[in-house]
Amino acid sequence: MSQSRTIPAASTVSCAETRLTELRKRLLEISDLGYAAAVLGWDQATYMPAAGAPARGRQKAMLSRLAHERATDPDLGRLLDGLQTHVEALHTDSDEACLVRVALREFERATRVPADFVSRRAEHGARSYDAWTRARPADDFATMRPYLEKGTELAREYAGFFAPCAAIADPLIDRSDDGMTTASVRALFDALRADLVPIANAICDQAPADDSCLRGPFDEGPQLAFATLAIEAIGYDMRRGRMDKTHHPFCTKFSGDDVRITTRVRLDDLSDALFSCMHEAGHAIYEQGVASALVGTPLGHGVSAGVHESQSRMWENMVGRSRGFWEHFYPALQRTFPAQLQAVPLETFYRAINKVQRSLIRTDADEVTYNLHVMMRFDLEIDMLEGRLAVKDLPEAWRARMQADLGLAPADDRDGCLQDVHWYSGWIGGAFQGYTIGNILAAQLYDAAVAAHPSIPTEIGEGAYDTLSGWLCDRVYRHGAKFRPDELIERATGAPLAIAPYVAYLRGKYGALYQLS
Amino acid sequence: MSQSRTIPAASTVSCAETRLTELRKRLLEISDLGYAAAVLGWDQATYMPAAGAPARGRQKAMLSRLAHERATDPDLGRLLDGLQTHVEALHTDSDEACLVRVALREFERATRVPADFVSRRAEHGARSYDAWTRARPADDFATMRPYLEKGTELAREYAGFFAPCAAIADPLIDRSDDGMTTASVRALFDALRADLVPIANAICDQAPADDSCLRGPFDEGPQLAFATLAIEAIGYDMRRGRMDKTHHPFCTKFSGDDVRITTRVRLDDLSDALFSCMHEAGHAIYEQGVASALVGTPLGHGVSAGVHESQSRMWENMVGRSRGFWEHFYPALQRTFPAQLQAVPLETFYRAINKVQRSLIRTDADEVTYNLHVMMRFDLEIDMLEGRLAVKDLPEAWRARMQADLGLAPADDRDGCLQDVHWYSGWIGGAFQGYTIGNILAAQLYDAAVAAHPSIPTEIGEGAYDTLSGWLCDRVYRHGAKFRPDELIERATGAPLAIAPYVAYLRGKYGALYQLS
Repeated sequence: MSQSRTIPAASTVSCAETRLTELRKRLLEISDLGYAAAVLGWDQATYMPAAGAPARGRQKAMLSRLAHERATDPDLGRLLDGLQTHVEALHTDSDEACLVRVALREFERATRVPADFVSRRAEHGARSYDAWTRARPADDFATMRPYLEKGTELAREYAGFFAPCAAIADPLIDRSDDGMTTASVRALFDALRADLVPIANAICDQAPADDSCLRGPFDEGPQLAFATLAIEAIGYDMRRGRMDKTHHPFCTKFSGDDVRITTRVRLDDLSDALFSCMHEAGHAIYEQGVASALVGTPLGHGVSAGVHESQSRMWENMVGRSRGFWEHFYPALQRTFPAQLQAVPLETFYRAINKVQRSLIRTDADEVTYNLHVMMRFDLEIDMLEGRLAVKDLPEAWRARMQADLGLAPADDRDGCLQDVHWYSGWIGGAFQGYTIGNILAAQLYDAAVAAHPSIPTEIGEGAYDTLSGWLCDRVYRHGAKFRPDELIERATGAPLAIAPYVAYLRGKYGALYQLS
Repeated sequence: MSQSRTIPAASTVSCAETRLTELRKRLLEISDLGYAAAVLGWDQATYMPAAGAPARGRQKAMLSRLAHERATDPDLGRLLDGLQTHVEALHTDSDEACLVRVALREFERATRVPADFVSRRAEHGARSYDAWTRARPADDFATMRPYLEKGTELAREYAGFFAPCAAIADPLIDRSDDGMTTASVRALFDALRADLVPIANAICDQAPADDSCLRGPFDEGPQLAFATLAIEAIGYDMRRGRMDKTHHPFCTKFSGDDVRITTRVRLDDLSDALFSCMHEAGHAIYEQGVASALVGTPLGHGVSAGVHESQSRMWENMVGRSRGFWEHFYPALQRTFPAQLQAVPLETFYRAINKVQRSLIRTDADEVTYNLHVMMRFDLEIDMLEGRLAVKDLPEAWRARMQADLGLAPADDRDGCLQDVHWYSGWIGGAFQGYTIGNILAAQLYDAAVAAHPSIPTEIGEGAYDTLSGWLCDRVYRHGAKFRPDELIERATGAPLAIAPYVAYLRGKYGALYQLS
């Protein structure tokens, strides 16, 4: 052809346009099948009668299978191949170049996994979750043991599709936290542990803060009303979402304009619903902030478990448990619960919501000991996957590790190895490391935001969050999954993932609260 | 082959077994796609934020398209053809023979409709419904007019796929009420009208009953609690269902073990939530009663709009508005609302819930005038479809017909042609006749049940419904869609569809209430 090399021929443009339109149509259908399955999952976790579980499991499995068939359609592979030349001419940061790059990576990952496996896993996940909702309150590990054994087998089978790999959990970790491995997570956790354990021990050896002001009882209605006030204030748009009750709170997305959160309420613990709402709202604010042009493609959601968790933990802890946040909000909370809080000073409340102590339940754990819970789960799941720990021995191994790491052990499995939904939703492996990566990234991102806008801490004390959320949206949210997690963090903060900001944050906040040297 | 003709060869049996297994697998997938779409629809009508509507419309359309692709797959047709010989050897009433017969009929019906049309209609329905939820309270017909025009065009387009047919609405009516036509519905309605109008006029010329005892206000919580008590008593199994609030009550099914109803509550009208719950529970009891072996196939649901409505209307009216039902339940209702009802005698309450009067709203209309509302809608939709009535002239035509038939006309469209969801959910035509067919069948089925078990009316007065529901389950519910509606009715009652029982029921009940000659 005789046209200039820098301006593609009209027919080439037209051909690429046609291919891109076809690509977007196919990706939207895959995305919509996922969103439809998410609606079925949300309903199952909020309103569905228990009797509906077997059919619901089958229906979700079917939708997963249809999505997987489309995600592995050889025609999709050919379409992506045919677009390589087109996108090589574009800026690597352009939406189109990122779209083709990420779609190709997902296609290559998906084609390794047989459709039959996807169905079996989805159906197992639904049945297992349903059984767990009854087995946990009944402290019934025996019922869950075969589900967990099956989940371990499924995880090993999944890893087999990506063989050879250095460790069984590597494909499972990579799936949640793109770019991380068993070895890199372990190295990160070892480094953090070295700094964290002395801080945790120094605090836990002191008398714990008095948090009796959080014990209530507090009525459900006002708890949910105040939580709604708080999450709308920090930027969760409830016109494009909603909040419902469930067993184990989560955030889910059905489109860019329907991102929902769930919560649970304890009448004897004011912090449970409030901070779980702020946590899930952090996830939701991230998803609501993804550029609408990306939604319905593989770029249209948060990029990894760790980066996602950085947002839930930042809004829950770095904002929601900060002194500044409560300087603004505490009077409103006192007006909501005058009988319980009118006589409680702000400082007492602030110390109560930041109480550090050895405890049994991960989701209730304070910022300091939380990561010890996560590291324990990470190690136990690696041990189960690599055959060093039999599922039947999990309750005992859990108790032993709790005793060693946190100095206390649960009296039953309800508060032990049955407490988290993750292993009972179908996956063993890759499910927990993101929580601690998220804590680390939250501090790193927050520091970078404050470096760019030193007024942020003052603004939080005034109930204004736009500067922080604007910076996060610009640097993180709107990009969706365009960039890999490590690249996104380096672009946003100017540095690779590092534990120093998080350790400094913990030392600063808890050093002041507990007069550490 | 040398085998006996009466015992199929082992290889033939095995081949038929394989084909039946494959058939059931395919039909289950089609069914599950429908159930998944139903979950998305339920969520849209109950909890979804309004902003989610565009994506939800697209997602429902996608699921409809996938179901339609599978329902029209030529391989399905070949599979059904291959099973003809097998089922000819079976008893025509056997599940398998009925399955192949009905599946073939549905295949032949589905293959007439292009996939693209199914998508367009589903998406139109979702957008139109969403607009209607705002337009009705705003009395905004202008906004709905283009949706209604599009709905009319879509209905005509649908009819075109079944050309030639005697009337445009015939395929639409046949789709809801298998075996009925525009002409047969009109003949039925003309006959009923001749008996009904004199009864309605004789009552409406009298002073209306005093129903001030229903005006409350009644708090929402106790209203829903009492309605739940009533619907569980008549046989709705809430362990396999649930009740939520919506704009326009409906019943929906996600599996044999998850059949849900929705309701709305008016604080100033005790009868609204209560009787709409009993109505929808009637639909749900029918669906919960379908034999579980049929669910997940084209036999696994109620057979037609008319037969379905016979159950909602029987439980709502013939049971729920009967003197016997309230002889048992009225003391409990008085205890629920002592301030409002303690001083109101049962007879006053009974007359209030059976008040007959000229009124504007179909769903609020009494048993006597209700059918005049239905007949009017039937005539108007036929006129729109056949081009005698332009959509823009609908509000005026509605008012004129209301004035002529019921002696009063709505002041606005909110209480006029915007009141029903049906035309605004995507279909014009075939949506209303089932209500009156249902009333007629309810009386015919109830009479047959009482003829078989004369104790039924006494039992209802004692709060016992098992004999009635047992007979209905045996004669109607468990068969699902195995038999065509006319065949089912003849099997159940020993006679074809007839208006005499219904006219006798109205004359008996309302003759006593209003001292008619």
